[in-house]
Amino acid sequence: MLADPESAIDVACGKNGAVFGISSGKGYVDVSTVDAASSILISKQIKDTGALFLEAPVSGSKKPAEDGQLIFLTAGDKPLYEKAAPFLDIMGKSRFYLGEVGNGAAMKLVVNMIMGSMMASFAEGILLSQKVGLDPNVLVEVVSQGAINAPMYSLKGPSMIKSVYPTAFPLKHQQKDMRLALGLAESVSQSTPIAAAANELYKVAKSYGLSDEDFSAVIEALKAAKSRD
Amino acid sequence: MLADPESAIDVACGKNGAVFGISSGKGYVDVSTVDAASSILISKQIKDTGALFLEAPVSGSKKPAEDGQLIFLTAGDKPLYEKAAPFLDIMGKSRFYLGEVGNGAAMKLVVNMIMGSMMASFAEGILLSQKVGLDPNVLVEVVSQGAINAPMYSLKGPSMIKSVYPTAFPLKHQQKDMRLALGLAESVSQSTPIAAAANELYKVAKSYGLSDEDFSAVIEALKAAKSRD
Amino acid sequence: MLADPESAIDVACGKNGAVFGISSGKGYVDVSTVDAASSILISKQIKDTGALFLEAPVSGSKKPAEDGQLIFLTAGDKPLYEKAAPFLDIMGKSRFYLGEVGNGAAMKLVVNMIMGSMMASFAEGILLSQKVGLDPNVLVEVVSQGAINAPMYSLKGPSMIKSVYPTAFPLKHQQKDMRLALGLAESVSQSTPIAAAANELYKVAKSYGLSDEDFSAVIEALKAAKSRD
Amino acid sequence: MLADPESAIDVACGKNGAVFGISSGKGYVDVSTVDAASSILISKQIKDTGALFLEAPVSGSKKPAEDGQLIFLTAGDKPLYEKAAPFLDIMGKSRFYLGEVGNGAAMKLVVNMIMGSMMASFAEGILLSQKVGLDPNVLVEVVSQGAINAPMYSLKGPSMIKSVYPTAFPLKHQQKDMRLALGLAESVSQSTPIAAAANELYKVAKSYGLSDEDFSAVIEALKAAKSRD
Repeated sequence: MLADPESAIDVACGKNGAVFGISSGKGYVDVSTVDAASSILISKQIKDTGALFLEAPVSGSKKPAEDGQLIFLTAGDKPLYEKAAPFLDIMGKSRFYLGEVGNGAAMKLVVNMIMGSMMASFAEGILLSQKVGLDPNVLVEVVSQGAINAPMYSLKGPSMIKSVYPTAFPLKHQQKDMRLALGLAESVSQSTPIAAAANELYKVAKSYGLSDEDFSAVIEALKAAKSRD
Repeated sequence: MLADPESAIDVACGKNGAVFGISSGKGYVDVSTVDAASSILISKQIKDTGALFLEAPVSGSKKPAEDGQLIFLTAGDKPLYEKAAPFLDIMGKSRFYLGEVGNGAAMKLVVNMIMGSMMASFAEGILLSQKVGLDPNVLVEVVSQGAINAPMYSLKGPSMIKSVYPTAFPLKHQQKDMRLALGLAESVSQSTPIAAAANELYKVAKSYGLSDEDFSAVIEALKAAKSRD
Repeated sequence: MLADPESAIDVACGKNGAVFGISSGKGYVDVSTVDAASSILISKQIKDTGALFLEAPVSGSKKPAEDGQLIFLTAGDKPLYEKAAPFLDIMGKSRFYLGEVGNGAAMKLVVNMIMGSMMASFAEGILLSQKVGLDPNVLVEVVSQGAINAPMYSLKGPSMIKSVYPTAFPLKHQQKDMRLALGLAESVSQSTPIAAAANELYKVAKSYGLSDEDFSAVIEALKAAKSRD
Repeated sequence: MLADPESAIDVACGKNGAVFGISSGKGYVDVSTVDAASSILISKQIKDTGALFLEAPVSGSKKPAEDGQLIFLTAGDKPLYEKAAPFLDIMGKSRFYLGEVGNGAAMKLVVNMIMGSMMASFAEGILLSQKVGLDPNVLVEVVSQGAINAPMYSLKGPSMIKSVYPTAFPLKHQQKDMRLALGLAESVSQSTPIAAAANELYKVAKSYGLSDEDFSAVIEALKAAKSRD
């Protein structure tokens, strides 16, 4: 599960890349997190050898990976998908086949766009509850019991209240995914004002030096500065 | 469970209001959805009679109410809270005691603020997935399996995709709660850019005549107009 | 030119208010900056005496007032407007008659809403130019020569670059006007996402303790905090 | 004044490009509107021939060009700037020398970012004034007399009120510049929430089919749809 397009392209197509050891009858399943363009590039080179290609980025970060609870968002050659399915089932709890290469990456971006906005909104709620004199831990508890209960809130809320951000998904990656999702939206002239506002908060958090902390550190972007310079 | 401050005040303090039949040794539990100011007003009049007062707005709409799954966000006289608890437990699945009168209303606003932003973000995701050629039903399914899974998404997603909005929580009430939450945030100089952006979308939806449909109709605010006039 | 509704109401309708010394044949011109509701209240009490009423809030702050360059946004009794015109012309450079009482206040809010958004946008530009290595003074100069040249930019830009905010229009008043304008927009279901985003910045600036400095201090809300706590 | 990077690169570096007829002792002044990366690419190829290079994008659209009122935002070889100055002075009313290649493009993006936000804010004001029963033409007049008076408002306001958008600067170019400016801001982790919100409106306008009309058509993005589908 390579973290960026460059590494994924290098492993697949580089000097000692998979393309040199692959051929018709074989298949290449790429579980890296790359953008659609890189995925299409790798796909093309793999398929030129006669081999099959399956894009299979995952939804889920550190903990789900350790627990075999990943979700595979696959796209590409369906026969390869069917062959890979039993193996994906070992590593993950579910898998989706989404059609042509690039769709896996796009689905992941849409999911992460929603996730980024939700986290920013949750951060607003935590701080607002504190400022008006409510116990934010009670807010987290109330949220956990209603229609908006999401595992992410229960998992991250308590540490956010303590201003601790153990990194499961780095903030800079969340910001990058917001940017890519905004680009995707722009490519189809889709308005996404919530994601755009959330992206600005992740940018603020980055300017505070929080790029490598968990994306829940976005809450810092909403806190008042102690003093102005 | 009265829908607005005026009705709640009338029932409690009006011509035939509860204040005329209540006195020391008795208690008044108000499960209406009112703003903090109205709640404090009712509280004062009830308490002037010597009776106890408990503010007890609920989190949860039509379906949870029918199923006895409401969440009570109470505040006011603790002895009355303790006496009322067994009855609240029949109607709801949980209850919180939040201190002084007004805190129940504030907690509800914070929760609804997050809810409104989440729904607007989810709407962005559904439309974006459609526009880039993904099946939005698959998006709803993918979301339902990950860290951002919330009951609301699974419940409303499928009907939103069909542009159907059976009213559980009217859009105009969600917009009103966004506005009140923004006012609450402003009163403590708390920045809430996500909620502010979401509020604008609910306003657009209202201008489309969707006030009385479910708040999930906010998705209409993100769709391109067919033509300009 | 009273600063707030309370003072304006007191001077007009209070214990020693104008209403006790006014009567048919006379007129009351209120150049205070009040909201429409207060203006309508004062109007009613003045007119109950038989006197005429003219609402006449001004556009323009300290410097234009000193220079007799104010703009009067009047509404109410037209005969009084015509009588007052020569006097308004002494204090201001122009005057508008806008119809029924409340319209003067509404016009002022719309103008100040645009002004607040423009200033926030200008602040974004100044900081962005600095961060990418351009001289912000040159930006101010370039802006001053083109289609977006506004006197406000030339006046405030140089001091904003020096992080100095001599108060002509207090930031807290600008934020209040943004809030009132957003309320006005909501009353007619008009979406105003730019003003909503700008308002959030003024709120941030208020939380930094800049309420009484000039509204150009909103630029501080866009600067990265030195460190997080 | 070529409209896009591709044309500019082709004219400079293409099959029959300027690079083949240029050499030491000569100079190339590029008045195209390109991004910094393209400008740097052209610069490199020109300078490899021994010739000097000056990037000189203009601020100002159709009318200022016709009137010789353009503003040149130049960057690159200073000796060439000094030689070109008399010619730039014929076509434009002023010129700025901004240092290394890329700075001209960056300055233009910052200016256009402010312009795009200002126009979106102005559009909000026009519609809000209409909706609350004020005459938007009076708003345009009031604005023209105060601290926020900008030539663009007086020029475009009257036609915006009539929903007419004669193209001086195409909306799709304004949206592209907003996007590029947001990218520039992101590259230095600068938060720009106003520009981000404005960009969303230009995207909505594009989805309405208004790409080739003047960017003042962004006002359409704020109008309520007649009906939902």
